[in-house]
Amino acid sequence: MSTHFFTYDELKVFCEAAFHRFGFSEQDSAVITDVLLLADLYGIDSHGTNRIVMYHDQIRAGYIDINAKPRIVSETPVSAVVDGMSGMGQLVSEFAMKKAISLAKSSGIGLVTVRNSNHYGIAGYYSLMACNEGFLGISMTNSLAAVVPTFGRAPMLGTNPFAFSFPAAPQPFHFDASTSVVTVGKAEVASKLGKALPVGWGINSEGHDELNPAELLKGIYAGVAGLHPLGGGTEEHGGHKGYGFSMVVEILCSIMSGGNTSNHVESEEGKSGVCHFFAAIDPKIFGDPSAIQKNLETFLDELRHSPKADGKNRIYTHGEKEAEAYTRRLADGIPVNERTIVEMKDLAGYLKMDFHSYFPDLKK
Amino acid sequence: MSTHFFTYDELKVFCEAAFHRFGFSEQDSAVITDVLLLADLYGIDSHGTNRIVMYHDQIRAGYIDINAKPRIVSETPVSAVVDGMSGMGQLVSEFAMKKAISLAKSSGIGLVTVRNSNHYGIAGYYSLMACNEGFLGISMTNSLAAVVPTFGRAPMLGTNPFAFSFPAAPQPFHFDASTSVVTVGKAEVASKLGKALPVGWGINSEGHDELNPAELLKGIYAGVAGLHPLGGGTEEHGGHKGYGFSMVVEILCSIMSGGNTSNHVESEEGKSGVCHFFAAIDPKIFGDPSAIQKNLETFLDELRHSPKADGKNRIYTHGEKEAEAYTRRLADGIPVNERTIVEMKDLAGYLKMDFHSYFPDLKK
Repeated sequence: MSTHFFTYDELKVFCEAAFHRFGFSEQDSAVITDVLLLADLYGIDSHGTNRIVMYHDQIRAGYIDINAKPRIVSETPVSAVVDGMSGMGQLVSEFAMKKAISLAKSSGIGLVTVRNSNHYGIAGYYSLMACNEGFLGISMTNSLAAVVPTFGRAPMLGTNPFAFSFPAAPQPFHFDASTSVVTVGKAEVASKLGKALPVGWGINSEGHDELNPAELLKGIYAGVAGLHPLGGGTEEHGGHKGYGFSMVVEILCSIMSGGNTSNHVESEEGKSGVCHFFAAIDPKIFGDPSAIQKNLETFLDELRHSPKADGKNRIYTHGEKEAEAYTRRLADGIPVNERTIVEMKDLAGYLKMDFHSYFPDLKK
Repeated sequence: MSTHFFTYDELKVFCEAAFHRFGFSEQDSAVITDVLLLADLYGIDSHGTNRIVMYHDQIRAGYIDINAKPRIVSETPVSAVVDGMSGMGQLVSEFAMKKAISLAKSSGIGLVTVRNSNHYGIAGYYSLMACNEGFLGISMTNSLAAVVPTFGRAPMLGTNPFAFSFPAAPQPFHFDASTSVVTVGKAEVASKLGKALPVGWGINSEGHDELNPAELLKGIYAGVAGLHPLGGGTEEHGGHKGYGFSMVVEILCSIMSGGNTSNHVESEEGKSGVCHFFAAIDPKIFGDPSAIQKNLETFLDELRHSPKADGKNRIYTHGEKEAEAYTRRLADGIPVNERTIVEMKDLAGYLKMDFHSYFPDLKK
């Protein structure tokens, strides 16, 4: 599949215009675009511009209410519960993490749980919001069930990502990962490439390892097969631990917000009910923030300089790959594959936008 | 190796007496014993009575100061930093989690970080302390480095366990696991049985997979080889995610307490410097605790009753295995292997205790 490189600015202008045409205000369109484009800059192509079409489908299907305003259901000096009112996940989440940051500014810590929201893009966008204020930031979300519990074969948990960011130089410590062995997106890539899956990624409706990615995806979409948690399908490699981390995300997001668990995220009434959890913690409550940051930087440095496995010449600390992709893609452009370009073109047609005027370098 | 079953009461009386003879007060001896015996009752044999000898060695080596009193270095309404003053890990940790619970009672949440402590036994003991008060409890610790970062071959991180408990019936949700693919104890069991390790558990000093458990352990003890994080040694199965969760534990424990990271837990001055993190959160800050608990119980029930993988007839939720072992072992006794019995006997001799008077059923 051929790929075209768009500049950050080209994609930004197009995305903002498209979301504005969907009916979002200019300000809201800018927030949504910022979340999607950070994924693109970080090299997380599965959560960037190529999701515009998915969001549009969810708006048309009634899952996402473009006019919804998130509502604070209850709050204490250290916490809040937010009802997303079926709004766009990025807008609900930006609102909720801002609330967590504001609580952390006054109380040292803010925990915010969210119910009745939608797909929020990359988890790490929100943990970085706190990190940019000098705080420890945590962000989690449940999602449409795609992961089986250990010894199960039906999807009961979302890929339930967990993000944790803390200030450091030259870049923050930034860990953002699903609690499943891989994301659905990784199986989709294997399917496109026609590559067999490794043992331990997924299980089919008959309860056996599924190595055919197209079959596994069909099963996941039908709600009868699933990915394994981090650690795979056996206790020998710790699948029950990945299942446990997925449960931690589930409990903090859906149970603590009074919302829907991943296996009920799509209700029969055609409403989505994704739940999130956000935390902002001011390191000042534990000591001098600059000393804390310096200790972290020393440790990250020791990790990077520790002896390497055979055939490896680099140990990464979390956030380095993202920071390097960011610099590279801002300079060289963001790769968008042909299929996504066709989808964007169709969407532009539907929204009555002149697609080629946004991307003058693209051949018609 | 033959195994003898001791009753809970027999082991309790012996352990309390032994710790009292080490020099701990009766009250402190009871706390330490309670932590060790919960591990035994939960079936976590690697962290139970068979550790008495290890603790004794650490006391004699000067790592553990039996007279130390933990000290609160700083506190806010939602947090505290504790200096363990090189005290016994269980005593320092009971003190710190009590502080977290007391903060949660007044502020809704309490986060306590601890530096200069020692091995604290099972992480889950402390998260359950909060859970027994109706709170969400979290407990983590770093530990002597035994785990390599992804693409590394030198141990830089501890097995860094993470425990998370929340009230539910018929038993709490209780997740307690290392963030490594397995614990050092699992490699020790394989070594005793002369069984080869699976690929993905450990890496040797030359940076290759190590399948010989005795060789791997030798390398770990020498600080030149290590276990892999949860997910194994490759990104294909998510080893970088396990590495990330291990980092989360490390940052919350050592960086946020101003203590030693796992790779510096044993200092050159012959002091240990283990660090912990404890959190207690009152669910009231998010809503009605009984409604929250009921929602969790419904979800746990749905998980247990969801379709099974081929050849499996049961899906566990975290805490079930522990609760069942507890009931069984309280009734049938706690298995202690011959080697441990010999070690206990030697220790009793050293402490001038009449070993056989504590265990009358044991043949001389």
